Amino acid sequence: MGGTAVRPDHVERFYEPVQAQLDRVRKGLRQLASDQDEYLTEPLEHVLRTSGKGLRPTVTLLAALLHPNDGRNAELMAAAVELLHVASLIHDDTVDDSDLRRGLATVSSLWGKNAAVLVGDYVFAASATYVCDTGNVHVIRRFAETIMSLSRGELQEMACAFQTTQTREIYLKRIQDKTASLFTTAAESGAILGGASRDEVDALKSYGFNVGMSLQIVDDILDFDATREEVGKPVGADLAQGIMTMPTIIAVETGPADNPVLTSLRHPGDADSLAMAVQLAQDPAIIDASYAAANSYSLAAIKSLAALDPGPARDSLEQLARYVIDRRY
Amino acid sequence: MGGTAVRPDHVERFYEPVQAQLDRVRKGLRQLASDQDEYLTEPLEHVLRTSGKGLRPTVTLLAALLHPNDGRNAELMAAAVELLHVASLIHDDTVDDSDLRRGLATVSSLWGKNAAVLVGDYVFAASATYVCDTGNVHVIRRFAETIMSLSRGELQEMACAFQTTQTREIYLKRIQDKTASLFTTAAESGAILGGASRDEVDALKSYGFNVGMSLQIVDDILDFDATREEVGKPVGADLAQGIMTMPTIIAVETGPADNPVLTSLRHPGDADSLAMAVQLAQDPAIIDASYAAANSYSLAAIKSLAALDPGPARDSLEQLARYVIDRRY
Repeated sequence: MGGTAVRPDHVERFYEPVQAQLDRVRKGLRQLASDQDEYLTEPLEHVLRTSGKGLRPTVTLLAALLHPNDGRNAELMAAAVELLHVASLIHDDTVDDSDLRRGLATVSSLWGKNAAVLVGDYVFAASATYVCDTGNVHVIRRFAETIMSLSRGELQEMACAFQTTQTREIYLKRIQDKTASLFTTAAESGAILGGASRDEVDALKSYGFNVGMSLQIVDDILDFDATREEVGKPVGADLAQGIMTMPTIIAVETGPADNPVLTSLRHPGDADSLAMAVQLAQDPAIIDASYAAANSYSLAAIKSLAALDPGPARDSLEQLARYVIDRRY
Repeated sequence: MGGTAVRPDHVERFYEPVQAQLDRVRKGLRQLASDQDEYLTEPLEHVLRTSGKGLRPTVTLLAALLHPNDGRNAELMAAAVELLHVASLIHDDTVDDSDLRRGLATVSSLWGKNAAVLVGDYVFAASATYVCDTGNVHVIRRFAETIMSLSRGELQEMACAFQTTQTREIYLKRIQDKTASLFTTAAESGAILGGASRDEVDALKSYGFNVGMSLQIVDDILDFDATREEVGKPVGADLAQGIMTMPTIIAVETGPADNPVLTSLRHPGDADSLAMAVQLAQDPAIIDASYAAANSYSLAAIKSLAALDPGPARDSLEQLARYVIDRRY
């Protein structure tokens, strides 16, 4: 589990079966960025540098690898999934007023919120053109529905900020919308475009959902449990914005009635209340319980892989599901 | 031409052949709005009230009417086109810091810019699901490309604000991106889904492009030539934001070297410079020359209709092309 800052090399082996494809996808996206007018090229090139580890397109490519196919549609879909992720990051950072993403300045902080809105729109639409090129209307529709889920999740988060009624149920629904939905679509679309059977598609949808839930819970744990250097943003940033996540939800579920978390929500901007709440959420018992919740989703993801034929793709998907728990950033 | 505030009843007869369909489309969109969670329903219902005259979905429905068909795909597409227009209005008002749209408060002024970004994203994606339900991948891809054009046009506008090098060529390219692209797609998709021939599709694409160009030029004229009550926003708002449009471009093309328009661009926020530039742009000769430019696009739109069979749909499309010139708001 996530209690260690050591990151063994072996955990990233899951890229191997699709590394060449992932490199091609990334090269194509850099080309897309450089082909634009200057006011688009600069923010696009910048945001592609901050988009992270490529877990979503990797899930798509691995899911498509279960059956023999030329991989062309899988690569189109992987590019779409990565671009959609990038677009949502641009808008999320814009509406959250975030200055940093993985230690680098955000598009909204560098080019202004207004430009960030329009660049994000452009990237959302560009991502959709890649899905269109797969020619699969079912996959295209799932993709559009995913954008609806992402924005609904973010809106729900905004609507409940500083409310003391944020429950585990509300939290889980929100992270399904804002994170697990895209992992579900990444896995489902890869499976469909790779020629998977109906049962295999269902298994990979379940895998994607569970990996996405696990990943978001770990992200939310790292908001309290990692250093600013590790995650590239201030510790306790979610709670400072009035958002309860797994650690603070467990803190309220298990803590005293005059809970520091609730006190901090009732006093937005009060640094002392926030510091006390962050300290409580950092309690090792609460962090362990939060990791246990994340771990149960990762285990469910691995369990759903049992429906697939054994092989390098299934092995990598299993490693990836473990990795989302082990990572520190 | 547009020199009169009188709005004869006959100009809006163009709705008649598709009025029942347009009513159904609008009813469906109101239903979509009311089916959401509260934080989406309220802004959606509000923005549907400010979206205007439904010219874009009307173009789609009329274009689909040239050949016998059940009209189902045309109505899906009309709903998509209207929703896409609504989504772009939400984001445009957000990035322009506009408080008023047709005399009503904007989503960003009522619910804040951050919520407006996410509501706009949701509506963009919802619009795409309607296009997906037509099952026509070519039309879906054109739709995604249109969203790219809309955001690129707005970004270009933002990038050139307060620059004194804004030429007619740059302006025409921008309004093609930000306005004519959606009219082109509205007409093209209606034609395709209604079973038009290749030549008819090309004729209707040309029609949509020219109507869109004309409509945007008239909008830009009304920014100077209509009263605040007519257009529901301050006179000269574009120039106050540093944006040159047809009247100010003609003013610079035909005016003195020490042009008040250029002076106002060099002094952002200076009310006196702005007032002098607005006064110049309101010169009847400049307004007439601007209307002549708009009129040439409307005439080109009408000319392209010659490729179509005569009938109520073609008649309405012709009336609509005249109406965009005659309207005062």
